[in-house]
Amino acid sequence: MLYWLGLVLKSHIFLFNVLRYITFRALIAVIVSFLITLVLSPIFMRKVTALNRLYGGYVREDTPETHSKKKFVPSMGGLIIILSLELSSILLMRLDIAQTWIMAFTVFGFAIVGFIDDFVKLKNKKGISARSKMLGQIIVSFVSASLLYFVMHIDTHIYFPFFKSLKLDLGYFYIVFVMLILIATSNAVNLTDGLDGLAIVPAMTTAFALGIISYVAGNSILARYLEIHYVENAGELAIFGMAVVGAGLGFLWFNSFPAQMFMGDVGSLGLGAALGMLAIMSKQELTLIIAGGVFVVEALSVIIQVSVFKITKGKRVFKMAPIHHHFELNGTPEPKIVVRIWIISILLAIFTIATLKLR
Amino acid sequence: MLYWLGLVLKSHIFLFNVLRYITFRALIAVIVSFLITLVLSPIFMRKVTALNRLYGGYVREDTPETHSKKKFVPSMGGLIIILSLELSSILLMRLDIAQTWIMAFTVFGFAIVGFIDDFVKLKNKKGISARSKMLGQIIVSFVSASLLYFVMHIDTHIYFPFFKSLKLDLGYFYIVFVMLILIATSNAVNLTDGLDGLAIVPAMTTAFALGIISYVAGNSILARYLEIHYVENAGELAIFGMAVVGAGLGFLWFNSFPAQMFMGDVGSLGLGAALGMLAIMSKQELTLIIAGGVFVVEALSVIIQVSVFKITKGKRVFKMAPIHHHFELNGTPEPKIVVRIWIISILLAIFTIATLKLR
Repeated sequence: MLYWLGLVLKSHIFLFNVLRYITFRALIAVIVSFLITLVLSPIFMRKVTALNRLYGGYVREDTPETHSKKKFVPSMGGLIIILSLELSSILLMRLDIAQTWIMAFTVFGFAIVGFIDDFVKLKNKKGISARSKMLGQIIVSFVSASLLYFVMHIDTHIYFPFFKSLKLDLGYFYIVFVMLILIATSNAVNLTDGLDGLAIVPAMTTAFALGIISYVAGNSILARYLEIHYVENAGELAIFGMAVVGAGLGFLWFNSFPAQMFMGDVGSLGLGAALGMLAIMSKQELTLIIAGGVFVVEALSVIIQVSVFKITKGKRVFKMAPIHHHFELNGTPEPKIVVRIWIISILLAIFTIATLKLR
Repeated sequence: MLYWLGLVLKSHIFLFNVLRYITFRALIAVIVSFLITLVLSPIFMRKVTALNRLYGGYVREDTPETHSKKKFVPSMGGLIIILSLELSSILLMRLDIAQTWIMAFTVFGFAIVGFIDDFVKLKNKKGISARSKMLGQIIVSFVSASLLYFVMHIDTHIYFPFFKSLKLDLGYFYIVFVMLILIATSNAVNLTDGLDGLAIVPAMTTAFALGIISYVAGNSILARYLEIHYVENAGELAIFGMAVVGAGLGFLWFNSFPAQMFMGDVGSLGLGAALGMLAIMSKQELTLIIAGGVFVVEALSVIIQVSVFKITKGKRVFKMAPIHHHFELNGTPEPKIVVRIWIISILLAIFTIATLKLR
């Protein structure tokens, strides 16, 4: 929106001219989304705490026993993150390109699925069934993928980091590929969200790395110089990536150990879909595996645990899955596990950005 | 060193060609310095813990009473950070420029002053007198400043962010100016180093921001485009900045709450001098105030507390200074204070880098 205002007013007032720059709007995105979460969270926390006490609190299933002390910590803080992302992207991204609206829809859709689960959990503890949740994710991701394919006419090739000459055209199957990415990332972030501050920081570092790459991919000179695939208007996605960083920092202010609120499924599903969409729309689908490596490992730990348990009829690879609970049961203090996983996610982001030069 | 190897071998083996790129060596700097601290710290911690038990442990003066539980946590972990910085800078920076050696000397000199204090503290608890410590800092910073002035013939102008046309020539006084910066930053980092993980992250974000700016300042095309003052060879400082990030992440692995080791004065004085030197050699002396804003506020809180106490003969502005102890006594849990200050330091780094475009 401000981009358009900048276009209209640039000849009148000099200051508005800078609104045309992606870098400037990306900076504003960090600040605006940070302030929105910082200011709204305390109000929100008071409301949800009251609801929590009314319905008797909730402890996440399949967590170590020590987690029972988190019973009355308000959840659904992700609502504020999502609100902050939607507001700042509509305020700062260009409104005349499909990317802005498809991103907004996808994040909103996944957040709604998560919100329904969170809301039902308030009363009946169990939430909605795994099947209904998956159905919701399939519907939203199908709509998003169709919009990308039929409306935005997205390039259906997959490009490979490090192998510049390699590309693969998926054709119609690209729709299924998009759905898989969105469902996988949203569930992976959801699984990771099990310790105070654990999910939000890797989400920020992943969004930051993908944001930088989107900026490069959307700049024809930089893209040619670094030999990565040029994608028209991908630069606008950098603004969204920085909004995730800002909203994440504001949320972390309250979510860091000991947490005063959790993001809930509304946050983790919405954020996961956002990360998937950033990678898809900048045609960096495979880079997501490196940048979001923490989520990949967390999800894999669950898959390995469940598979081995079924095959061996009862053997466990980890003391508990996802893997962060394994570390917890090994005796490492919660805040230390969390910061160590942050360190790994920061290294992955640095590595992802550095590969731009190495590809 | 590897730069030189790259020059020699580039015609023989293709891989060595990339060693000429600053960005590539900066990435390697992160990885190498991270691995050095990660691998050496556990060995080091065992040795110092043994010494600590022998001499009865040490609790920092002027801290809340709860800090007595940190009595036997090994200190002097900064030794590993400094070792890691010196090794990776000699391995990765160009050895034919004065910057590399003056940086190495300054960091080493300040670290030695801190080390003497730490070592004496092991036995007599009090450490060396404030006067001897200051004398050591004055001597080292005088030598560093003289090397900059007489050997490197550093530009003695000061440039102002946001005011492109403004510059001020300090002439001989630049030597005093350099000494002031080095002594101020090293003491500010030292004061900040009072909670688990508190000093290292702002040191990393400051080094990161100054590293990015150094890279731009050392690239004539980028410097002209962004209208910042071009400084020959400043790009090599980006490698040093990234080494601080890598070493910092490796140190944080053990230093995060609850800390298994502290950096001690050897770390805080050495790191502080490194940050000051990064700003000086990239001619971004004033940018340091923004990027290192956390250290500025921590130092100011002590100055305000002491001044007001003296003037009013007994009134206190903060419950305790530096300001992080004030928050602690207000009841905010230690790890939460720390993460919140990290959040502020990240925002300051983003802002510092973004100002490149706005200046």
